[in-house]
This record gives sequence, structure tokens and C-alpha cells, in this order.
Amino acid sequence: MKSAQYKGNREVAVGTSEAIQPGPGEARLEVAFCGICGTDIHIFHGSMDQRVSKPQIIGHEASATVAEIGEGVTSVAVGDRVAVRPLCFGEPSNFDNGHAHVGKNLKFIGIDMPGGMQSSWTVPAYTLHALPESLSLQHGAMIEPAAVACHDVRLGEVVEGETCVVIGGGPIGLLIGLVAMQKGAKVILSEVNPSRLDLAKTLGFEVVDPTKQNLPEAVSKLTDGQMADCVFEVSGSAPGVEVMTELPNVRGRIVMVAIHPQPKPVNLFKFFWSEIKMIGARLYEQEDFDEAIQLASSGKLHLDKLITQVNPIDQVQETFEAIDANPDGIKYLIQCS
Amino acid sequence: MKSAQYKGNREVAVGTSEAIQPGPGEARLEVAFCGICGTDIHIFHGSMDQRVSKPQIIGHEASATVAEIGEGVTSVAVGDRVAVRPLCFGEPSNFDNGHAHVGKNLKFIGIDMPGGMQSSWTVPAYTLHALPESLSLQHGAMIEPAAVACHDVRLGEVVEGETCVVIGGGPIGLLIGLVAMQKGAKVILSEVNPSRLDLAKTLGFEVVDPTKQNLPEAVSKLTDGQMADCVFEVSGSAPGVEVMTELPNVRGRIVMVAIHPQPKPVNLFKFFWSEIKMIGARLYEQEDFDEAIQLASSGKLHLDKLITQVNPIDQVQETFEAIDANPDGIKYLIQCS
Repeated sequence: MKSAQYKGNREVAVGTSEAIQPGPGEARLEVAFCGICGTDIHIFHGSMDQRVSKPQIIGHEASATVAEIGEGVTSVAVGDRVAVRPLCFGEPSNFDNGHAHVGKNLKFIGIDMPGGMQSSWTVPAYTLHALPESLSLQHGAMIEPAAVACHDVRLGEVVEGETCVVIGGGPIGLLIGLVAMQKGAKVILSEVNPSRLDLAKTLGFEVVDPTKQNLPEAVSKLTDGQMADCVFEVSGSAPGVEVMTELPNVRGRIVMVAIHPQPKPVNLFKFFWSEIKMIGARLYEQEDFDEAIQLASSGKLHLDKLITQVNPIDQVQETFEAIDANPDGIKYLIQCS
Repeated sequence: MKSAQYKGNREVAVGTSEAIQPGPGEARLEVAFCGICGTDIHIFHGSMDQRVSKPQIIGHEASATVAEIGEGVTSVAVGDRVAVRPLCFGEPSNFDNGHAHVGKNLKFIGIDMPGGMQSSWTVPAYTLHALPESLSLQHGAMIEPAAVACHDVRLGEVVEGETCVVIGGGPIGLLIGLVAMQKGAKVILSEVNPSRLDLAKTLGFEVVDPTKQNLPEAVSKLTDGQMADCVFEVSGSAPGVEVMTELPNVRGRIVMVAIHPQPKPVNLFKFFWSEIKMIGARLYEQEDFDEAIQLASSGKLHLDKLITQVNPIDQVQETFEAIDANPDGIKYLIQCS
């Protein structure tokens, strides 16, 4: 039984983990694949040491097979192939407003609790979403980031015929573009990395390198002056925040996907002047996982193109280092059993 | 025929203005009262000299009686008492998205074109809203700012039982609170001026002086930890922007009412973390004027309490200076005929 444990100081060590017998309402999984998220990289860099206890088994983008179920579990059966929605809901509080996925007592599995980079993993059964036979377990490990994208596009209220601009072409930015395209939107992706731009082109997006072209001018040209209906800020960068308000049409939307740890200057005048709306979006709800599974199964998310490498858990340290060294990479998966 | 003309250098001179015969689709008004808006004060201070030609007859919060109508006008008749929605719509453009009131070719009457501080004023007839007999012409001059408040509350989607926090207790902030209260919301008003705080109390708001109390803590206490459903940033201040993201509950809304000419640091992390939404709101649409007239007629907006002084047009310069000298003042009206 192997696990990948964050130890601090840019070290993710392979250790052993005990199989934990599932309690009532729980299931024990044999994890197949677990993707490495930007958040895992932040953990690796030590940026989340205040939140993450050490050692911690990390990882939250997992596909798995159900190995054992606890008392009262009827939603899944042993042998089911599943994706894990890694949210552990606590007691409802006054500061939830009925949205437990961003509520006060939420615990995120893989950050606040042991995660998916282990061969045997016990989780609440309500976190599990069955995968159809047509979906491979490698693609199953992409359901979590795809569900983020489904959530972002849903909160952005993107509809057919609209134009979306996605600022930032990492895994989430690309998936947002792909999901928006499935809604019938035209997608313009802004990214500085040439390799990611090339990939984005093969996915069917219009692409702009904002260091080479003026992004608002490019969007104006591509839309005959109509500009964007919905802008996704996924870059987490100051230039991204600076340009995001220059892109929407009157009453256009900006979806704030990226994490900006420090306050950044925002052109509030543009919000007033053109009645722009900004919508914060975090994680996902059940329906976003359902949609991600449906879209992934249809093949329309081109998940093969987004997977850069699949490495065995024994190489987890090297994989984290490889991600740091390769700005062209998209998604790295760890094979956990 | 008198008019109040902005001449630059903090001078608003009383001049003469000719009665202009209304062309097709126009009406000539005998203006009764015209309120002085924060925007007029900005013009007086020279802050809008790049936009406002000199001399310019200013004013856009007017009540009037129709004196003459042009060819084809059927929506109003001579003798009708009216409020003016001071928006002159140009040709629709690609950058309107169907919202002409914030569209590219909008001209604002009283800034971009001669305004209401004149005894005889010719405007497009489509700008006119009939006032019911029960509404005085003084109160009729308050319809324009009340319509701003109706628009802000409408875009904030405030519903019965919600809690609103209004940051800034000037005329628009107070009117937003009053309109929100009519929707059945509980209103907490944050303001630093003691006299405005006293007035806000008499209007039925909970009040907080953020220089004396921690505003988020006060809101938490007043809501049993539930915080605000909708926050209106009306202060135009950096502290207002800093605190606005600390007030909403999960999925709460912030309505950006104030004009922030320069970008200001915004806690974007809070948008992401609690899925907060920010909605820019500017001016009004036809239905907002209709609602403002209905609410004003019902007496529920307490307009008498908001009118600080009514001065004849001959004293317009002194009135602008008085506003500058009196931070306790709310709304000053100019009697135009």
C-alpha cells in the first residue's frame, strides 16, 4: 500500500499507508489515477504550510474502483468505477447560505484531510460519482478539473452564440474553453506560452498572445466590435486583472476563477460604466460533476490532448519537479495502484 | 427666461436662455425644480471639464410642466406635470448589447447637452414621465435620484427578508436604503457623518459609524453571523472598497454604485472563496422611473426628510458653495421658474 506524502521543503515522499476499513456511509477505494493540480504545486512549494499538516497524503483528482463499502452505503457497489468529488461537508452554518461547497465548515479532501495519492483510500460514499464504461480511468482522473470548468461556465451563464474570452491557458483555462464551446460559444484564449497556444489552436479556439497583440483590440477585431459576453480570469496575474475589465460588452460578465492571494487594483469605473458583473466561482457542485462525466464520455473534452504524462507513484517527487521545470506541460497523472 | 450656466472655475452664472420651439418628437417644458447632483458638484469643481463644454446649462434632476409639444408627440400633452429621464439615445451600436441607457452612443442631458436648470427647456418627449396629482413638483425633482436607487436595488436582486448593507449615506445611499426597505429588506447603513447617521436612524435603518465600530463585526452581530445578502458601495472611498468584500454571505452580491475614477485594490480572493458577485449599476431604465414615481407617490420614500434647501435660480452660485460647505446636507433643489 503506497502513498505520496507531502513532508515540507519541496518533498513528496513515497510512504506506506494502511487500508482503513470503511465506517458507516464510507467506501474504501482502490485508486487508479490521481492528477496533480496547481494547488498541489502550491502545497509542494510550501505556500500552504499554514493549512496543510505534515506529513499529509495529498491529491484530489482521483479515479478509482470501489474495493469495500461501509454500513448503509447503497449509492455505490464494490467494483464500481468512480470519480471522487473531494468535498467533506461539515455541519451547516449561518455562513453557508445553502451552498455547502463553499460553506464555512467545508473540508477539502487532499488538503485538509488525507487525499487520493494512495493505493487504498477511504472516503465518504457521497463523494463518489460512477463512471460509465466508455470512460477510461485515466480520463476519470480528469473529471475533477473538468467539473471546475463546468461550474465556472455554469456560473458565467454562457449560452449559445456568445463570445467567451479565457485569460490563461493552463488545464483549467483550456477546459473552460472546451466546456464553453460545448455550450455553443465562440472561445478566444489569451495565453503567453507558445506551446499552450499551439495546443489551444488544435482545440478550436481563437488564440491571442497578449505580449504580442493588444488583447482588447484583438477581441474587438474578432467580434466586430461586440467584445466578450463572458470573460474568465484564470491567469491569477496582475496583467490578467488589468485587462479583464477591458474585454466585456455592456452587461458582460467576468468569472473570477483564479486565486489572487493579495488584493489587486481593479478598474471599478468600468463596472459602473458598462454595468459589468463579476462572479466568483470556486470548486463545483454535484451537477457539475455529472456534466463533466457526460461531456468527458462524449469525447468532446479532448482529454487525451490535455494529459502530458502518466507516471507511477514511485516517481511522484520527480513528477512534481518535472512540472516545475516544464511550463509547457498541462496535466500530469500519478498511477496509484 | 433664466438659466444656470457652468462657466468653469467654480462659477455657475445666471444667464438668459431662449425658449426653443420643440421640433418633431420634442416637448418644451416649463421647469419647476431641478435638484443638484453629486455629478453637478464634480462639474462645478472642474473635474469634468474634458467632457462638459463651457458655458453649459447643467442640471438633470428636473420636474416640469409641459408648455408646448412638437409634431407627432402623443405621449404627453400641454399642462402635464412630468419628471425627465435625462437620457438621449443615439443610434444603436454593436457595443450596446441592447442596453441603450449604458450604450456607446448615449448622451446624458445636463452633461453632454443643455440641462434642466433653466425656466424653459426643450427635450425629446420620450424622456418624460407623467407625475400623478398626489406628487408635488418638489418631490417630482427627486424622481431622478430615486430612479437611480430603484435601478441599483433591482440589479442587486434584493428580495423580501434579505439584509442589505449600504456603504455611504448621501442622497443615493439613503434612497437605496429606502427602496430596499420597500422590498422587505433589513437595511444597515454605514456612514461617518453624525448628522446623516441621525437622519438614517429616523428612516428606520440600523446605522454603523465605521470609524467607531468594526463594520464587518457590527454586521455579523446584527445578522447573527449571516452577514449581508446585498452590499451597495456608494461611498466612492478606498475604505468602502476595502470593506465591501468583508460583508457578504456566501453568494452575496455587491452593487457597485459609486464612481471610482482610479483603479482600487480589491480583495479578489474573497470573490473566489465565497462565490461573491459584483454588479455594476449606472443610471436607470424606463421601469426604474416608473417604480420611483410609484414609490414616491406612496409617501414611502420620505422625500421631505431628504430635501435640505430649496433656493431660487438667482442663488445658484451660493447654493453650490453652500453644498461644498455643508457635509451634513442631503439634497438641494433649485427653483427654476
